[in-house]
Order: sequence, then C-alpha cells, then structure tokens
Amino acid sequence: MISAGSTLRTIRERKPLVHQITNYVVMNETANATLALGALPVMAHALEEVEEMVRLASALVLNIGTLSQHWIESMLLAGGEATARGIPIVLDPVGAGATTYRTETARRILGTVGVTVLRGNAGEIGTLLGAAAEVRGVESISVGVEPADLAREAGRRLGVIAAVTGPVDHVSDGERVLAVANGDPLLATVTGTGCMSSALTGCFLAGKPGEPLEAAAEALAAFGVAAEDAARDAEGPGTFHVRLYDALYALDPDTLDSRTRIEEL
Amino acid sequence: MISAGSTLRTIRERKPLVHQITNYVVMNETANATLALGALPVMAHALEEVEEMVRLASALVLNIGTLSQHWIESMLLAGGEATARGIPIVLDPVGAGATTYRTETARRILGTVGVTVLRGNAGEIGTLLGAAAEVRGVESISVGVEPADLAREAGRRLGVIAAVTGPVDHVSDGERVLAVANGDPLLATVTGTGCMSSALTGCFLAGKPGEPLEAAAEALAAFGVAAEDAARDAEGPGTFHVRLYDALYALDPDTLDSRTRIEEL
Amino acid sequence: MISAGSTLRTIRERKPLVHQITNYVVMNETANATLALGALPVMAHALEEVEEMVRLASALVLNIGTLSQHWIESMLLAGGEATARGIPIVLDPVGAGATTYRTETARRILGTVGVTVLRGNAGEIGTLLGAAAEVRGVESISVGVEPADLAREAGRRLGVIAAVTGPVDHVSDGERVLAVANGDPLLATVTGTGCMSSALTGCFLAGKPGEPLEAAAEALAAFGVAAEDAARDAEGPGTFHVRLYDALYALDPDTLDSRTRIEEL
Repeated sequence: MISAGSTLRTIRERKPLVHQITNYVVMNETANATLALGALPVMAHALEEVEEMVRLASALVLNIGTLSQHWIESMLLAGGEATARGIPIVLDPVGAGATTYRTETARRILGTVGVTVLRGNAGEIGTLLGAAAEVRGVESISVGVEPADLAREAGRRLGVIAAVTGPVDHVSDGERVLAVANGDPLLATVTGTGCMSSALTGCFLAGKPGEPLEAAAEALAAFGVAAEDAARDAEGPGTFHVRLYDALYALDPDTLDSRTRIEEL
Repeated sequence: MISAGSTLRTIRERKPLVHQITNYVVMNETANATLALGALPVMAHALEEVEEMVRLASALVLNIGTLSQHWIESMLLAGGEATARGIPIVLDPVGAGATTYRTETARRILGTVGVTVLRGNAGEIGTLLGAAAEVRGVESISVGVEPADLAREAGRRLGVIAAVTGPVDHVSDGERVLAVANGDPLLATVTGTGCMSSALTGCFLAGKPGEPLEAAAEALAAFGVAAEDAARDAEGPGTFHVRLYDALYALDPDTLDSRTRIEEL
Repeated sequence: MISAGSTLRTIRERKPLVHQITNYVVMNETANATLALGALPVMAHALEEVEEMVRLASALVLNIGTLSQHWIESMLLAGGEATARGIPIVLDPVGAGATTYRTETARRILGTVGVTVLRGNAGEIGTLLGAAAEVRGVESISVGVEPADLAREAGRRLGVIAAVTGPVDHVSDGERVLAVANGDPLLATVTGTGCMSSALTGCFLAGKPGEPLEAAAEALAAFGVAAEDAARDAEGPGTFHVRLYDALYALDPDTLDSRTRIEEL
C-alpha cells in the first residue's frame, strides 16, 4: 500500500544506513538530504572497504556523475555484494547519452549488478533503451517517447523499477505505472536535485523492504512535497536549496499522505 | 561592444554547456553559479570521456585547485581538443606560487593548450610572469606590480586575455586594459568565489564568441553586481553565499548595463 | 591559560594557513568554516606538493572520511613532514570502527605520524582503544565507557590530546580532562560538523602554539558557541548550516570567554 508518511515514520525510527558511491559535485548535498530526512548516509568508495561497508547498509546508491575507472570498479564491487545479500540498489545514470563512456558504464552496471531502481531523467533513461534521446551534459533535452511509456518500457526491458523524473515523475515496474505530480520548477535551478532524489529513493527502499515500486514513488512524492515547501518563500535557487533541507527535516509523517499526489495510470 | 546585459540575454536563450574540470572544493559551487546564471554546467574528468564531452560544450574551464597527475592529464586532453575546435578555454591557476607543482602545472597548461582567458589573483598571475609574488595557500599576499600593469604584461607575454581579480579587477589582452569596479568585500570570506568567477567567465565566453576581452570583463562585472545584491542584507559569509545564487538568478539583462562599472584605462 | 577569545584574536591577526587533507564530502564546508573563523584554508593532496605545502602551514588536518590508497600516502607524507618540523597535526578518524580499512588506516597514521590532537566521536575513539564500540557508517552508536574516561584513556594510551565530541565534549592529555558544554543538537543534523570541528581545532592549534590541550578545548567551545548562535533562529538543518558560517564570522573575541563553558573535571 502506498503511504509515504508511514514509510517516513519507519525511516525515522530505524535510521537505516544508506551507502552512497556518488559524484564529487553532490556528495555533501545527498548526505545532507539523507540526514535531513532521518536516515544515515555514508560515503565510501575504496575497493578495500566497499564490500564491508555495504554489508552494514540497508540500501546502496550508485551515481555515475563524475565517474572514472577506479570508481566504476568500486561500484561494481559494492553492487555485487549488495546483490548477493539482497540489499536494494539505486542506480542514477547521470549523463548517460552525453558520452559513450557514461552510456556504457550505466549499461555495464545494469548488466552485472541487481539494480532495484533506475532513477534518471527522460534523456538518460531513453538513451539506455536505445531511444532517440538528446542529453546535453547532464540535462535531458528531448526524447521522442511519452514519459509514462518510457518508464513502462524501461521497467520491462531492463528488469528494474524505472523512475523517470521530470515535471511529472513516472515510476514503473514494467506493468504498473505510478505518476507523481509533486515538485517545483526551482528544482531544475539547483545542481544535484536529481541526485538527491536518488539518495532519498535509497532511504525509502530501506524503509519499505520488498515494495520497491511503491517506495520509489513515495520517495519522489516526499521529495516533491519538500520542494513545494522550500519554494514557498524562496527568493531564488540559493535560498530554495537551503530550505529544501529544512523542509525535508520538517516533513510530517502524519500529514504527508494528504499532500502526495501519486496516481496509478 | 561591451554589454553584460546583452551577453547575459544570449546566455539565457542558448543555455550553452560549460564543461568544467575543476577542484573538489568548489565543484558544487561553480555548477550552481553556472546554473543560476542561466547556462548548463557539466563536470567530467575521465580520460575516457573528456574529449567527447568538450565537443558538446561552448566553453571549457580548467581549474587546478586540487590537482593530481590524473587530473592534469584530463585537463591537457580536454584542452587539446577544445583548442583544435576553437572552443574557448578559461584557466584558473589556483595556488600558483604556493607550490612548485602548481606553478609548473599552470605553465604546462599555458604552454600546450590554447588558453583564451587566464583568471587568477595578483599573486597567482604575478608568479606566472616571474614577478616577486607571495602566495599563501591559495591567497594572494603581495605582488610588487600594479594590477593594471600586471594584467597588461600577462596578456602580452602569455598571449592570453589576463583577468586579474582583486578589489578592482583588471582585464587585458596585452594592449587594452579594462578595469571592473563591481564586487563586495564579502566575496573574500567565502571559498571558491574566485573559482565561480572563472566558471562565469566561461559562460560569458560562450555567450559572446570572438570577443574574449569584453566577455571576460562583462563576466566579472555581472558577478560583482550579483555580489553587491547578495551583500545587501547578508548577515555574514553564510547568508551572503546563499544569496549569491539568488542574485545571479535574478540578474536582469535590461538593467545590468546601468550597474556594471567597466572602464577602459 | 584557557581563553578562546584571546586565541581567536591571535588567529584573526595572524591568519594562519591550515593545510587540510580531508574528505570529498566536507571540503567546501571545512574550508568555509576555516575562512569564516579568520584563518586561511588550503586543500592539497598531490604527492608532488603536500610536503612543500605543509611547510607553509601552521597546522595540518588529516581526515579519513572518504579515503583511498592514494590519499593515505599523501596523508603520511604530509604528516611526516609536519612531524619533522613541529607543525601540529589533527587527525579525524572518520568512520573508524565501521570498516577494518578505516580502523587500520587511523592506527597507521597514529603509529607513524606525530598526531597532536585526535578528534572523533566516542565510537571512533573507542574503536581505536579496542573498546567495544559500535559505529554505523560514520555515526557513533554506542560505546561502553564514560566519555571522560574514554578521553583520558585515549590521551594516555595513544600519546595524543584526545578530543571526544558528543553532547558534551571531553578533551584530555591523558591526565587532565576538560569538559566543554557548548553546542546544539542541530549539529547532528548536518553532515560534516564533526569535520568542521577538526578543522577549527587546527586553527586553534595554530593560534595557541605549545598548548594543545587548551587550544583543542577552546576550539570546540568556540564552535559550540557559534552553533548556539546559529541555532537561535534556524528553521532546520539548512538554515542552521548557513548561519553557522555567519556565526563563526561574527564570534566576538571580547565576549567569547563569557560564553564558553569549559570545565576541568
């Protein structure tokens, strides 16, 4: 059953550890978003420790935003261990479609690791399906498929929960599609908000084991509600960014469900 | 013709991609400054992808603030490709003068890559000219040359547009010197504001192709105006830093030229 | 004699350079905390330059928060040079106890470098003493020793000033124990505040040479006072984090001693 409020309550009670192997640009941001929500982040990428660290974790988040060979190996190692132990994994294929290296790396991780949720923008996910997608840097410019169809198709063909974020987010397991209509345009003015949504997806997977479709939609809805709160008195991207942490911290499990706009298509 | 407002308008219309290979300390900050202004940042440093990425970009920003061998190779590779394709390049020689490694690396990049604009403080630029400059860490302590002369000399001898920032900024192509008198002392209390000005210089180069002297001065003036706005109600470096993004986002192309203080010496 | 105000005044007058080899998550944060206090941060980790850089510095801060082999070597190299020259060193053993790699690395640094102050949470310090400590990620969950005893024991057995932070901080040279009761619970909601306290400890060591026990307590007290100020009108972790820099910048050397709560046990 979908209830972002009830999952949030569980997260705050259990404080699950969410292991993140992510990019240099947003490490501080995703750690702070995780903490503000009520979970515990840990960043660790050394080959010598990622397997041991991920065993302590309730979810693993892999993000290829500033990848290099060394980091890919760590992601595969941590991902392999998480897969073997049934720890849910989020993959954020940042910039897939912009360069061959990113596209291939995202495919390699999808092919060798048991990814639970693939969270990206339409251009990134479209690229991974072989659709005609245009990605400029890490920005989705265009993709010739409706996002709901893209999510369903990605879920089916890649064997994951696909979470395609945009003005409205679409989450699918290949059959069912959930649309999430929370959020604010200011999210696009701050770098790393997509990465934050991936980190929070990890938190919700940890808080709602065995229901990744629902957990992924709840995470995006909760993040969107926080963005709506943060946008209220924001004077621009700077104050919006700061208030986003305040808003995540202030999310109220008791009223959250009345504010989330999750609809099954 | 100098018009920061008109270049800003172009940037916001075209949303040029600005590829940045920069230091760990400020990656989030320069990405957010780029986004707030209206351009698109991308951070990518893997040898496997920098050439492909820079081909998508309208400017390349190289910053040696936390350098290591691996990153220098990426800068040279991306820089070589940008040079071959006529994509403008900004070099920020962070800490040149503090250690031999930084000084030599900045010289090596200047010697092998077609740097368009060299943006640094007086100590860094002075060091690269062989002047008696004192740099402590990444801070310019003293240099025995007037900044206008330093900029002109650097422009002439290094074959670049030299942008020497300080209380008043001086930008020169080796002959003409433009002085930019916008800014606020709070800029010195936040780390990475120099790096942000280099990133914004990349944005303005992308927005005003073929006029790098004017573009560099406009970038520093626009950043200085934003700093003036951010300082207005700031209670210290923290709130100033946050409002700087709000102010960049709020810069108005229609009124910007009435506020920039750019003077040809 | 303990006087955070007088050490702060010295720091602001001399602007000591504090060389930090720290983790990717908090580099921006510790640099900004250092600057806001009134000292100069520099981040440099290349093997080619760390010895030259640390010779310019008045303190060295080593932090293993996102370690890898390459960075450990840099820490040992910089630490060796600092030791040889009598430059005080702070070690922040982030996540010791969570993985063997972190625990061993912290021990290796302690065994080969002349660490002046070891600043960590109870779980991390307890682990390094071989106590039954539970560390989840980088969070101290439990340790079966009173913090005052833990600090004294760590000081004595490891031959350092041990600074064990928590709701009340305990600093000891193995004999004397100083308790510091400043701070605010919001510190635990922002990532990297422990790392910031280590960076500020480096600043205070630079400002009060030869009195590391007192300097370490003063640093934690000053940081705690700033946190109290920042918390006053904070609406959550985001605004608290931003105001923390404002508050560090606004710390008044003349009144600081009346607000610090440092007690010898």
